[in-house]
Amino acid sequence: MEANILNTTLLLVRDLLQRDDVAGALRIIESLRPPDQADIFEELPPEQQMELIPQLEAEAVASILEELEDEDAAELASGIDASVLAQIVDEMGPDEAADLLGDLDPTLSVATLSQMQEADEVRPLLLHPDQTAGGLMTSEYLAFPQCMRIDKVLPVLREWDPKGGDLFYLYVVDTENRLVGVASLLQIIRAKPDEQLSSIMKRETIKAHVTDDQEAAARLMARYDLTVVPVVDDEEHLVGVITVDDLVEVLEDEATEDIQRYGGTVPLDRAYLDTSVAQAAWKRLGWLLLLFVTGTLTSTVMSMFEAQLTQVIALAMFVPLLIGTGGNAGAQTTATIIRALSVGDIELRDAIRVIWHELRTALILAAMLAAVAFVRAFFWEDSAPLALAVSLSILAIVIWADLVGAVLPLLAVRLRIDPAVVSGPLMSTLVDATGLLIYFSIASLILGL
Amino acid sequence: MEANILNTTLLLVRDLLQRDDVAGALRIIESLRPPDQADIFEELPPEQQMELIPQLEAEAVASILEELEDEDAAELASGIDASVLAQIVDEMGPDEAADLLGDLDPTLSVATLSQMQEADEVRPLLLHPDQTAGGLMTSEYLAFPQCMRIDKVLPVLREWDPKGGDLFYLYVVDTENRLVGVASLLQIIRAKPDEQLSSIMKRETIKAHVTDDQEAAARLMARYDLTVVPVVDDEEHLVGVITVDDLVEVLEDEATEDIQRYGGTVPLDRAYLDTSVAQAAWKRLGWLLLLFVTGTLTSTVMSMFEAQLTQVIALAMFVPLLIGTGGNAGAQTTATIIRALSVGDIELRDAIRVIWHELRTALILAAMLAAVAFVRAFFWEDSAPLALAVSLSILAIVIWADLVGAVLPLLAVRLRIDPAVVSGPLMSTLVDATGLLIYFSIASLILGL
Repeated sequence: MEANILNTTLLLVRDLLQRDDVAGALRIIESLRPPDQADIFEELPPEQQMELIPQLEAEAVASILEELEDEDAAELASGIDASVLAQIVDEMGPDEAADLLGDLDPTLSVATLSQMQEADEVRPLLLHPDQTAGGLMTSEYLAFPQCMRIDKVLPVLREWDPKGGDLFYLYVVDTENRLVGVASLLQIIRAKPDEQLSSIMKRETIKAHVTDDQEAAARLMARYDLTVVPVVDDEEHLVGVITVDDLVEVLEDEATEDIQRYGGTVPLDRAYLDTSVAQAAWKRLGWLLLLFVTGTLTSTVMSMFEAQLTQVIALAMFVPLLIGTGGNAGAQTTATIIRALSVGDIELRDAIRVIWHELRTALILAAMLAAVAFVRAFFWEDSAPLALAVSLSILAIVIWADLVGAVLPLLAVRLRIDPAVVSGPLMSTLVDATGLLIYFSIASLILGL
Repeated sequence: MEANILNTTLLLVRDLLQRDDVAGALRIIESLRPPDQADIFEELPPEQQMELIPQLEAEAVASILEELEDEDAAELASGIDASVLAQIVDEMGPDEAADLLGDLDPTLSVATLSQMQEADEVRPLLLHPDQTAGGLMTSEYLAFPQCMRIDKVLPVLREWDPKGGDLFYLYVVDTENRLVGVASLLQIIRAKPDEQLSSIMKRETIKAHVTDDQEAAARLMARYDLTVVPVVDDEEHLVGVITVDDLVEVLEDEATEDIQRYGGTVPLDRAYLDTSVAQAAWKRLGWLLLLFVTGTLTSTVMSMFEAQLTQVIALAMFVPLLIGTGGNAGAQTTATIIRALSVGDIELRDAIRVIWHELRTALILAAMLAAVAFVRAFFWEDSAPLALAVSLSILAIVIWADLVGAVLPLLAVRLRIDPAVVSGPLMSTLVDATGLLIYFSIASLILGL
C-alpha cells in the first residue's frame, strides 16, 4: 500500500476511534492486508490498541502480531490475557508463534501454551536458538513415506490447511523419518494415481541442518534459488522447513546490520523509530568512546613533532586534508571488501588476490591524488619542498589506507570475528594517527627539520 | 557446496583437462548443481571454457550462463556461434534469455533470436528496461479464462514443462486478458473437477506494473511475502510474472550498492574479483578527487586562524581528534538513516521525528564525550581554558555532525537523489571544515586570541 494512502487510512481510523466508532475502525482495519493492518495498528496509542484487540477476530490479531517487529509483538501480547492469547497464537504460523512465545515472559508463555490447541506443533520449535536454522523453521509441512501412492496422497492434500501460507512441496521420508526426496505439487498433479512417491520424487535434495547459523541457511536458499528448504537433525531426520519469506527477512536484517556496523554503531535490532533515544545513544556510545580514546593517539603524534610544527606552521594547514583523504580512501576499500565477504564473493583463501588487487588500485588512485595535491599545495604556500612533502605524503597515506582497509576485514575473518566490525570510523581513526606519522616524517626529511 | 569442496573439485577438473581427459572433466561438471557448475567454469581459462562448451549439453551450458554474472555470461556467449547459441538460449528461462540477449552485440543477438524455437517467448521481454519490473519478469506462466473448469485446467498442467523453474500459481484473466485472480496449485488439487476457476480463485491480487522500478516491485513482494507477483501493463493486461529468486537478487544488489555508495565509491555492478583494477580505480577516483578538493576547505579554515595557531601551537594538537570524532559521530547517524530509508522504516514525512530523535541522541553522546575530552585535554596540556575550549568544541561538533548526518540523507530524498550517495566520506569531509570553524572560534573566544 502506498505510504500516503496508508497515512490517510491511519487518519481515518484514528478519527473514527476518537468518535468512539470502534465498529467503523474495525471494518477499515479488517479490510486491509496484514502488513498494512500492522502498520496502522502500530501507530495507534496503546490504550486504543487494547480497546481494539478484543473486538478483532483472533485471526486478524494473529496476522498483526506476525507482522510487527518481534519486540513490539511481545510488548503487545504481554498485555493480553493468556486464555485469549492462546486462541490468537493458535491462528499464527507455528514458527511465528514460537518466536512470539520465546519473547514473552516465561510464565505467560507457558500459561498460553497450556491453553493452545496447536501446542504440539509449536513446542518443538521453542527448543532451537533464534539465530539458527532450527529457529527459523516451521513445523507446518507434509511428509510421506516413499511407498505412498499418489491416490493416497491427494486426499491428505485436500484436507491440508496451512496457517503459515501456501504449500508448494511435499517431502518424502523413509521408515525412520529420514529425508529421502522432495516432490513439487506440479509433479503430484502430473503423476498417475497408482504411482508411488518414490518414483516421481527428486531424490537428491538440498537441506539445512537444524543447528546451522540462520545466515548460512539463507545463503544456501539464495544460492540454489530454493523457495523452501527442508531442515534435518544429526540423524538426517526431517524436523522442519524454512520458507522463502524467512530467507528474505534474514538477508535484509544481515545487510542492515552490516551497514550499521560499518557506520560504527552496534546494530539496533529493531526499526529506527521503534528505537528509543536512550537505546540509540547506548548502541553508539561504546564505539564513539573507544574511537575517541584511540583518536588521542593523533595528539600524541602531533606533539612528537611540535618542534617542526612551530618552525613551519604551514605544516599544520594540510593535516586535516591529508588524514581526511586517507580516511576516505580506506573507507572505499573497507566497504567494498566487507560486502564482498558477506555475500561470499570473496573468502579468506582469496586474501592474497584481494590485497594484490587493492595494492594496484591504490597505486593508481594515490598517483593521481598526489599529482593534484602537489599543484594544490604549491599554489597554496608557493613552496616546492612543502608541496613535494604534501604530495608524497598523500601518495604514501592513500596506499597505506587502502591496504589497512583491505587487510583489517580479512584479519577479522581470520580471527572469526564479523568483518563488519571493521567500521569506516575504526579504519579512519587508525589511519589518522599512522597517517600523521607518515606525513611528519616525510616533511621533516624533505624540509630538513 | 562448501567452499573447500568447491576448491577440490576445481583442482580435479583442471587436472583432468591438463591431462586432456575432457570426458572425465565433463562427468564431474555435469554431476554438479548449476551454481556450482558456474563457479567451477568461471575459474577455468577461456580456452578451456571454449573447449568444454561444444561437449556440454545445451541445457548444462544454459544453466551455467544463467548463473554467471551478466557481464561474464555475455562475454562467454559472444564467443559462441549463433546457431549453437540459439539451441543453448532455448534451454534458458525466458527472463534469463532476454537478459543475456540484451547484453550481447545486437547482430549476434538478432542472429541468435532468429534461430531460436522459443523466440516468441523471449522477444517481448527484450522491450523492457533492465531496472524495471518488466525487465525482471518472465513470460513463463499459465493464465486461464475465469469460466474454465478444473477438469480442463488439469490436462494443461500435465503438459506444462517450465524451463525457468517450478510452477506454484495459475493466473485467471477475463476475455480481454485482464488479470482478475490467482489460484494456487493446492487450491487446484482441492477443487472439484466441474468447478470453474472463478469460484476457487483469490480475487483481489497484488500486482506490479510493468514500468515499476525493480526495487519497488521487490519491496512489494517482500512486504506481502509473495513467492510470485504478476505484472500488468497500463490496461491491466497480464504480461508476465516476477519470481522470488529475482526478488532476492534485487534486494541483495540493492544492499550491496548501498554499502558501496556509503563507503564513497560508485557501485561496482559486478562481483569483486570480476572487477578489473582499472574499473575499481575508476569507480573510486571521482569521489576521492571531489572529496579531496572539498577537503582543501580545511586548509582554508586553518589558515584563517594561522595567527591563533602560531600563538598557541597546542591548538593544533587536538585538530585531528576533534574532526575525527565529528566524522565518527556523523558516520553512525548517516549509516543508520540511510538504511532505515532504503528498507522503508522511515520516509520523508518522518523527517521532523527523525531529526528530533537524532538531536536528543546527539545531546547525550556529545555531553559524555565532552566530559571525557575535558579530562583528557586538561591532563594533556594542564591548561583549564584550553581543556574547556576542546571540551566545548567536542560538544558542539558532535551535535553538529549528528544533525548533518541525519539531514543530508533526508535532503537527498527530498531532491529525489538516492540517499546512499550521502556517503560516510562525504559527510565527514563536510564536517571536517565546519568542525574546524567551530573549534577555532570557540578556542579564540575562550583563550582570548
